Amino acid sequence: MSDVFAVRRDRLRDRCSAAGNAAALVSRPANVRYLAGAAPPGAVLLLGPGEDTLLCPRTHAGENVEARLDDQLGLTVLSTVGDPVVAAAGVLIPSAATSLAVEEHHLTVAAHRAIGSVAPRLRLADLGCAVEQLRIVKDEGEIACLRIAAEIADQALGELLESILVGRTERHLALELERRLVDHGADGPAFPTTVATGPNSGRGGHHPSDRRVEEGDFLSVGLGADYRGYRCLIGRTFVIGTSPADWQIELYELVFSAQRAGREALVPSAGYRDVDRATRQPLEAAGHGERLAPRTGHGVGLEIDEDPQLAPAAMGKLDACVPVTVGPGVHLPGRGGVRIDDTLVVRPEADGGPELLTITTKELLAL
Amino acid sequence: MSDVFAVRRDRLRDRCSAAGNAAALVSRPANVRYLAGAAPPGAVLLLGPGEDTLLCPRTHAGENVEARLDDQLGLTVLSTVGDPVVAAAGVLIPSAATSLAVEEHHLTVAAHRAIGSVAPRLRLADLGCAVEQLRIVKDEGEIACLRIAAEIADQALGELLESILVGRTERHLALELERRLVDHGADGPAFPTTVATGPNSGRGGHHPSDRRVEEGDFLSVGLGADYRGYRCLIGRTFVIGTSPADWQIELYELVFSAQRAGREALVPSAGYRDVDRATRQPLEAAGHGERLAPRTGHGVGLEIDEDPQLAPAAMGKLDACVPVTVGPGVHLPGRGGVRIDDTLVVRPEADGGPELLTITTKELLAL
Repeated sequence: MSDVFAVRRDRLRDRCSAAGNAAALVSRPANVRYLAGAAPPGAVLLLGPGEDTLLCPRTHAGENVEARLDDQLGLTVLSTVGDPVVAAAGVLIPSAATSLAVEEHHLTVAAHRAIGSVAPRLRLADLGCAVEQLRIVKDEGEIACLRIAAEIADQALGELLESILVGRTERHLALELERRLVDHGADGPAFPTTVATGPNSGRGGHHPSDRRVEEGDFLSVGLGADYRGYRCLIGRTFVIGTSPADWQIELYELVFSAQRAGREALVPSAGYRDVDRATRQPLEAAGHGERLAPRTGHGVGLEIDEDPQLAPAAMGKLDACVPVTVGPGVHLPGRGGVRIDDTLVVRPEADGGPELLTITTKELLAL
Repeated sequence: MSDVFAVRRDRLRDRCSAAGNAAALVSRPANVRYLAGAAPPGAVLLLGPGEDTLLCPRTHAGENVEARLDDQLGLTVLSTVGDPVVAAAGVLIPSAATSLAVEEHHLTVAAHRAIGSVAPRLRLADLGCAVEQLRIVKDEGEIACLRIAAEIADQALGELLESILVGRTERHLALELERRLVDHGADGPAFPTTVATGPNSGRGGHHPSDRRVEEGDFLSVGLGADYRGYRCLIGRTFVIGTSPADWQIELYELVFSAQRAGREALVPSAGYRDVDRATRQPLEAAGHGERLAPRTGHGVGLEIDEDPQLAPAAMGKLDACVPVTVGPGVHLPGRGGVRIDDTLVVRPEADGGPELLTITTKELLAL
């Protein structure tokens, strides 16, 4: 397993040397985990020119973190009494390195200054989002984790649908979903589960409230599992009671058709903005343009929200083996709305087209 | 309610002007919440010279966040399409402000540079931990929230102790505790609940595993509630089965006496390091010095881990109305250990001494 991480580090090292930097300091937790296989809280990864070193802030004296992680990770692990960023600069001083690339989009101004004081001769450069770029295309091991994460989310959601919903609060339903995720083997929820009922339904990122499910409500649910660090997302909207109102059926069919159009646009070399446009266009045509979120999908992986962004101004094209969400939503103030989110992996048409990871039905269920 | 926040902002404004800065940009989420009463994800607060402004990244077109928050908060709210930090710099340009203090310990290098490009004439200074310093001493409204948070945690823990524990996994017990926290009115757990059994017991920050509770185990539990943003912490250790072993009784009594010594040292104007020493000394005398965590307690409030730090090298003295944890622990590798954590508020002796918020018994219970 540790070979995978060594290969990733070598790819980053190549990019760094090409940019004229002898060493790199990776501080963003998901990037550290991607390259080292683990990211204890506050840990940073120092890449070459000597041995790669994971520096972890010491939490408990007497616990031999170094030995425990060394064995697993196949790289040098140091536990540091002070700030690991400063310690990393200290490690570099005796080396021949004259320049260090740092993640300016993550490192704080104070930490940047601290490196400058410890190692004043080191030229500090910007690593930019080099690691985030490497992370976009997943290997089959990563996709296998996402597939399991999606199965877990489907199971948790399926069980909820079999239970009685009327009268229960958004908060309790959200908690029950999170418990079920863990029951089915998740390391935890991929993000705070959202449950939105009645007038709250269809709002992305709604924080579950004490509102209770009522007959006639739209109920929208967004959840995901974290499996070995990999995070998926599923969103569904249901109607409570036996007979949905006409406006509910109409709105549901509209959002469903937009979401399907987005899924069908997922082919290698499609532009990010083209996928967004495919999803967005049917909703705009129906007069909901003003109500739409700034984007209709995004990448998933070690973070629940990573590159690429599926948005009108996004630059770039999809590759095979890029997992993304497609999740349009329309919320009518005071009435509620519909969101439908899937996680899919882009695959060539020859391989059958996009691989749907979240397989819970998208028919309008009346519960 | 919004008056409280305006008064806090005025105190910070006074400090800023005293340091020669016309305006301040607060970006650390807990600091934003302390000064504005709310902290939507990614929001930053711009303080004077004109009106104070909360800048929030726009998430959904069509949702009138500004109007909704304006009413509640009594300050100007702007939703921004791009980075709110950059937007804040833009807001400042037409003003007479020549200098802006930023939180260098939170702001990224990239955001700092972006301000420099948007407003090149603005002199950027460091606000340092000025807001964190203001947050140390709590008002009675804040302490009331902490008191409720502690009651909720006590209730959740009390219910767990009445249930059957043998055979259940650490992960399930942790999840059940979190569900009970929310059942009793918490906005969520204050931090990831930790449940540690047998050889894992007594390890601070142990990540709950699939190990099941067995007869004869030590079981240590750490949990806390988030109530209106305020976070408390309680930690207890129990023994499973009717007759604790001699080493268990001995270790428990030792940690208990150390924790009591720490609690008794909580008086206004006691040095942070003196409280730590009071807790640490009995454990060192018993030969556990090498196994102790770098600190034995810390402040709580809008963050579960804030100033002051109760540690050997910490500088500063306690004030009345400062809530802190006192939580020593000893872990014997391969055997397990004991942690006992309380949240207390420092009070003058004339007022009865430290106020214990987490009142669950600290007798050694055999469950």
